[in-house]
Amino acid sequence: MINQTIQTIMAHRSIRKFKDQALSAVQIETLVKSAQAAATSSYLQTYSIIGVTDLDKKKQLSEVGRNQTCIVENGHLFVFCADLYRHHFIGGLENADIKTSLESTETFMVSLIDTALAAENLVIAAESMDLGICYIGGLRNDARKVSEILGLPDRVIPLFGLCVGLPDEKPEQKPRLPWTHVYHENTYEPDREAYRDDLDEYNRLIANYYDKRTNGERSEGWTEQIAHALSHPHRTYMKDFLKEKGFPLK
Amino acid sequence: MINQTIQTIMAHRSIRKFKDQALSAVQIETLVKSAQAAATSSYLQTYSIIGVTDLDKKKQLSEVGRNQTCIVENGHLFVFCADLYRHHFIGGLENADIKTSLESTETFMVSLIDTALAAENLVIAAESMDLGICYIGGLRNDARKVSEILGLPDRVIPLFGLCVGLPDEKPEQKPRLPWTHVYHENTYEPDREAYRDDLDEYNRLIANYYDKRTNGERSEGWTEQIAHALSHPHRTYMKDFLKEKGFPLK
Repeated sequence: MINQTIQTIMAHRSIRKFKDQALSAVQIETLVKSAQAAATSSYLQTYSIIGVTDLDKKKQLSEVGRNQTCIVENGHLFVFCADLYRHHFIGGLENADIKTSLESTETFMVSLIDTALAAENLVIAAESMDLGICYIGGLRNDARKVSEILGLPDRVIPLFGLCVGLPDEKPEQKPRLPWTHVYHENTYEPDREAYRDDLDEYNRLIANYYDKRTNGERSEGWTEQIAHALSHPHRTYMKDFLKEKGFPLK
Repeated sequence: MINQTIQTIMAHRSIRKFKDQALSAVQIETLVKSAQAAATSSYLQTYSIIGVTDLDKKKQLSEVGRNQTCIVENGHLFVFCADLYRHHFIGGLENADIKTSLESTETFMVSLIDTALAAENLVIAAESMDLGICYIGGLRNDARKVSEILGLPDRVIPLFGLCVGLPDEKPEQKPRLPWTHVYHENTYEPDREAYRDDLDEYNRLIANYYDKRTNGERSEGWTEQIAHALSHPHRTYMKDFLKEKGFPLK
């Protein structure tokens, strides 16, 4: 059952250091077509992908992403955008009143899900070609600036970047929650006794992972890390930004 | 470059008719672990997956999804949920004030993206095992009812179902937009002349696809189909539902 594809999927880790070799035009085309092969809700195809090769633009994007080197130095940088501009354009073309749909929370959700499904297809395709990848959620630190750099029209918003290239490092994999903790049968059981025990056990695993990886400098568990991260709200401008760009989430 | 994994990805089509053979426990475990191997924003792991085997629950879910037969008859039915309940629980455990983060638009976006990345990994893993899949966005027709059927606590919302099983049909693939239409380099160019031409050409392709598939009963192009679908706003209760469940999108 563990075929080559599943091996590829299971071997995923984020790669942040790439060899100095650009992806070929054929590789880029194959990757984008792989992205497009993903399922799309109601056939809407609500995304666009921007390939960034311009060095100045890459540097500007890197500033938004807190100077992660891999945003500049990679085989190719993709920026995945939720895109309803195309549909807005089609509304005009077909003389149809689609504004309510375009501005609904439901359609916003569809556009995020569609974009993410396409991105993950591109990731698996890249990894099957022995390329490495790193998602850059940090582009949402300043989505206004990213929109400006890439010339995104209204009803298009950047969701995340994706660095792809030949890996020049092989980091350890970060252990996931026990599979039985995220998988429930028939009913979600938030109060089962095992819930807390699962997290305790996972904390020990993660503490050990960090301890080994940092020679003892870090040794917090997962719940401590998560609580700390969520204590500092991020990107609180997002709702306003979305509204400005034509996503009022009605 | 076109290896087995990319062939699998490119061969995707939605399967809505399955052979009467349940997935094995080992298959389910492999699929869920494949899902978990996907990247996760800031290590948050903001999703849960409910496997539904109870026939009565499947029938109720099928009613929500407008009686699509495959929601009842499949090898296994997964329901993917954005899940911040776990983080809420951790906030209590670690005595941390994380409410603002949990209720932000940004964290909502993270949870949707994380869930979709995991789902698409599961899809590719399933298809590599010669299983077929169909996403069921129709579960959002009544997300309140789905939450009730599956006992989802606050801060957990169902995003979509996923039917998996041995295919008992082989539908044609639905052609995607020209890859150059969704892929831009350095700058999004909404006004380039080719934009309208791309859509015209794609319309002819899709009209021909439907014409052949329905023996001439249907022959609309893509833009007509999209404009028609978006003229009827769907699931306009979504914003209220999200708020009720602890996702006020602040």
